[in-house]
Amino acid sequence: MNVVVIGGVALGPKVACRVKRVNPKAQVTLVDAGTLISYGGCGIPYYVSGDVADHTQLQETSFHMVRNVDFFRDCKDFTVRTQTRALAIDRKAKTVRIQGPDGQEEDLPYDKLVLATGSSPRLLPIPGRELPGVFSVSNLEAAIHIKQAVSSGQVQTAVIVGAGFIGLEMAEALADMWGIETAVVEVMDQVLPGFLSPTLAGIAEHHLKEKGVAVYTSEKVLAIEGNGRVSRVRTDKRELSADLVILAVGVTPNDELARQAGITCHERGGIIVSKTMQTSDPSIYAGGDCVVVENLITGKPGYYPLGSLANRQGRVIGTNVAGGRATFDGAVGTFILKLFDFAFAGTGLSLPVALREGFDAISTQVVQFDHAHFFPKKDLVTLEIVAERGSGRILGLQGVCANGDSLKARIDAVAAMLKFRPTLADLSNAEVAYSPPYAAAMDVLNAAANAADNILAGRCEPISPEEFMKLWNNRATEDILCIDCREWGNAAPYVERYPEFWKNIPQGQLRHRLHEVPQDKKILLICNTGGRSYEAQCILKAAGRNDTLDVPGGMGLLRQCGFDPAQE
Amino acid sequence: MNVVVIGGVALGPKVACRVKRVNPKAQVTLVDAGTLISYGGCGIPYYVSGDVADHTQLQETSFHMVRNVDFFRDCKDFTVRTQTRALAIDRKAKTVRIQGPDGQEEDLPYDKLVLATGSSPRLLPIPGRELPGVFSVSNLEAAIHIKQAVSSGQVQTAVIVGAGFIGLEMAEALADMWGIETAVVEVMDQVLPGFLSPTLAGIAEHHLKEKGVAVYTSEKVLAIEGNGRVSRVRTDKRELSADLVILAVGVTPNDELARQAGITCHERGGIIVSKTMQTSDPSIYAGGDCVVVENLITGKPGYYPLGSLANRQGRVIGTNVAGGRATFDGAVGTFILKLFDFAFAGTGLSLPVALREGFDAISTQVVQFDHAHFFPKKDLVTLEIVAERGSGRILGLQGVCANGDSLKARIDAVAAMLKFRPTLADLSNAEVAYSPPYAAAMDVLNAAANAADNILAGRCEPISPEEFMKLWNNRATEDILCIDCREWGNAAPYVERYPEFWKNIPQGQLRHRLHEVPQDKKILLICNTGGRSYEAQCILKAAGRNDTLDVPGGMGLLRQCGFDPAQE
Repeated sequence: MNVVVIGGVALGPKVACRVKRVNPKAQVTLVDAGTLISYGGCGIPYYVSGDVADHTQLQETSFHMVRNVDFFRDCKDFTVRTQTRALAIDRKAKTVRIQGPDGQEEDLPYDKLVLATGSSPRLLPIPGRELPGVFSVSNLEAAIHIKQAVSSGQVQTAVIVGAGFIGLEMAEALADMWGIETAVVEVMDQVLPGFLSPTLAGIAEHHLKEKGVAVYTSEKVLAIEGNGRVSRVRTDKRELSADLVILAVGVTPNDELARQAGITCHERGGIIVSKTMQTSDPSIYAGGDCVVVENLITGKPGYYPLGSLANRQGRVIGTNVAGGRATFDGAVGTFILKLFDFAFAGTGLSLPVALREGFDAISTQVVQFDHAHFFPKKDLVTLEIVAERGSGRILGLQGVCANGDSLKARIDAVAAMLKFRPTLADLSNAEVAYSPPYAAAMDVLNAAANAADNILAGRCEPISPEEFMKLWNNRATEDILCIDCREWGNAAPYVERYPEFWKNIPQGQLRHRLHEVPQDKKILLICNTGGRSYEAQCILKAAGRNDTLDVPGGMGLLRQCGFDPAQE
Repeated sequence: MNVVVIGGVALGPKVACRVKRVNPKAQVTLVDAGTLISYGGCGIPYYVSGDVADHTQLQETSFHMVRNVDFFRDCKDFTVRTQTRALAIDRKAKTVRIQGPDGQEEDLPYDKLVLATGSSPRLLPIPGRELPGVFSVSNLEAAIHIKQAVSSGQVQTAVIVGAGFIGLEMAEALADMWGIETAVVEVMDQVLPGFLSPTLAGIAEHHLKEKGVAVYTSEKVLAIEGNGRVSRVRTDKRELSADLVILAVGVTPNDELARQAGITCHERGGIIVSKTMQTSDPSIYAGGDCVVVENLITGKPGYYPLGSLANRQGRVIGTNVAGGRATFDGAVGTFILKLFDFAFAGTGLSLPVALREGFDAISTQVVQFDHAHFFPKKDLVTLEIVAERGSGRILGLQGVCANGDSLKARIDAVAAMLKFRPTLADLSNAEVAYSPPYAAAMDVLNAAANAADNILAGRCEPISPEEFMKLWNNRATEDILCIDCREWGNAAPYVERYPEFWKNIPQGQLRHRLHEVPQDKKILLICNTGGRSYEAQCILKAAGRNDTLDVPGGMGLLRQCGFDPAQE
């Protein structure tokens, strides 16, 4: 059996290796247009930062062998042809026309063909993008050029266009490790649009600014300028100095080869595949950044250019090409991102996406330590859970924590459940591992489910941090009163500074001080992380006061968003 | 509505608080026989070690208020009566007879009664257990006595009877923080029997010994001896010096009150409850350490005295008592344990338990970094996955890692899925969060599923570390040859020391050196962590050699078990 694989970064080599293990008699040829293959593309920001010293490390196995043409021939028994472009597929003849490094063309016959053609950086239609010093993070070759530029010491200022994963990772790499004055420009109104709620995006933006990275959202890049080399970026609001510009405005699937061959593609791009990862031509498989797969929450096709999915799909394709049977059901869109001192992660839908997709969705935040609060080593975890009204179905979970491994534990538990359509009750009872050095008895994950359940049951009336901050900024006209449910020591700095707007009634005294809650003001209940303010709301409801608002996550969450009126 | 709760450690206070939030008009009274209530019992080892300085910290909320009688009255609006024993339940009259600190008896009327009576340490029927210096870790009062004993400096030697969670945590607390010469005696043939496979238990035992803790398994304590105070422990194999003895041989449910009232209990102990946590009397609920609940893997009743479950069940009971509707479906038995430099964790069934329960089960181990192998900060994770032949159903997952948060992420993902009866295909494709600082593109969790899948599909013929070590110890009579599939640098120390039994054929050379694999020997394929040895097995199978054995986890796993013949 002849197997031809087009593309050699993540999915292609995985398919080829798997085919050979399952069916060692298969003849497998992999062609790739580049010179460098089988590298960990997601490691590029860490190579640029210097965390990974040498780019060959991204091509190495865990036992330090470089995955090059020789490696795949000797250890994996298949042929790799680099600098070789696939020009066209003849589906009738079952051949692929390729062009080698010498320009010679040739037809490779296949019984099974695998398209692992990946994605390309989206291009901005703006002047100046061809100037020296302007890069996209398209592949390892480009990364090598970026690192040469920054390590030469010639880069003092950089502008990143696009605040998605790669944009923010590159911002950290430049600012943190090379001390470059870095600005991020994003056309949408928040960083990581689509992946985080405005609340969590606000935390990320606040942290970026703390770390000296300028963030300009709702701002459009109009032109890149310079004489012979980039020197500035012009947006619709300002001009930014830039010795280096990185364009990171997303990627588009490389589906041209498939389209030209008449294989069914999605109208917005991407090859359409079945759960067996077969294209509309059953002899041709596709996976990774060039395909669309089902979103398991919405049931609709989605585009997930993620290295993790490419590897899982690669194994499925390899099994099927070799004559076995495996399926890839779809994606839930799980991610994790290191951003200076914090990790941000999520799975499923964020609230804005859930609403856009037509779900009657709510979200709420909880803030709690990852480990037992009495254990010395611990970090705060902030989680935002997204759930559907009525059904209580969990639609997504996102969060932030200084300990990325701890955050991953919470996100992955939900990521693993999502395909089974779990409800809040499932998560409330989820039996995650407990011991004081690693968790609280009631884990923050269970607490998130319980918080959402209390809202859906009408027991808690929350206000989001954004809404709270908006009310606070208009506190006089809105006629608000924050009731601080903590003890006096915590509340004092706020009460003393804003006596008209901030009042202290410790939760344990509230039952006897109900008369001190004014009837004619908008009451906002607040504490450290939301436990006592929720309890206070229950007390006020029982006393017939139903119009108060609780601030979930409390001052703990607001401070992460950069809000602390006692510090102003 | 009158609600009476009997028991005030974990579940009882949780129920009472939840009832009051859902139905603030309920009159709730909680009685407890002790003086200290609502403490984090799982924190006791960390209080004894000194990680937690003061025992009141175990009673504090996250905002540093002590959860005592006043706290529950003021902040939670229910009555707590300490030093008050529940003597009998009159189900017809719906009253509980209680006896207060002054000896006075009284009948408390209830509409709903909650039994949160917990568990008691199992008693060993051996002489000397009443001697001063002999403790069980039954409650916070006992812990205070133990800490007084060790912090007085009078304890040089200690013996822990029982190598379960509490026994091992106490061993670490005594040996690590107080420098006490500590021995653990366990009647079963491994530590953590029932929770870990022999392989992972062997890793734990090896690490305990590295840390100076003596471990004696398959050994029975016959007597505790001393004049007026404990001085030694006599087992069926030796005598151990002991200034302090801790009995940690498990707990039994406190179900007497329920039994006497005619409530249905399990024949081996524990109150039987429905998914709504109601006993056979629908007005009486029970949860926590005094009940049995369904094991969601086996479908059979099981006993899970875990603080994490108590908290989850407490919320369910509180909701139901207050007139709502919630269910607790059952347990999967998730745990995590800190043991000196490593965390051990698991969920579902270990291989020995799966086999005992009649499953046609296999297990296999994988060893891989928690983060991308090219990222500077990383730790090895060892996972053992348990799966059912035929169905590929996942029955359990256990593991060990120096980074407990990383291990928790892998265990919790499976813990969260288990109730949905996932298969290896579900885990192979599980979309856990990926980014180089936190995971590999193909996570160790996916790799575990794939390794088990390869075994069930007949593509990999594994040998367990125990079987391997047994063969190695009889290497001459068993006529074995280890083929080391690594490069020469890794293999050299073994080949040079054991030229008859250890041969190096790097995996990449095997296809051309097939003739060097002797036909008449038992061939064991080995590498660093199992990847290349599996690849080698595929090559040998393709060449018609079907009787070789692969060592999953390779030298990485064997070294964790304390096996390294080059070091002997």
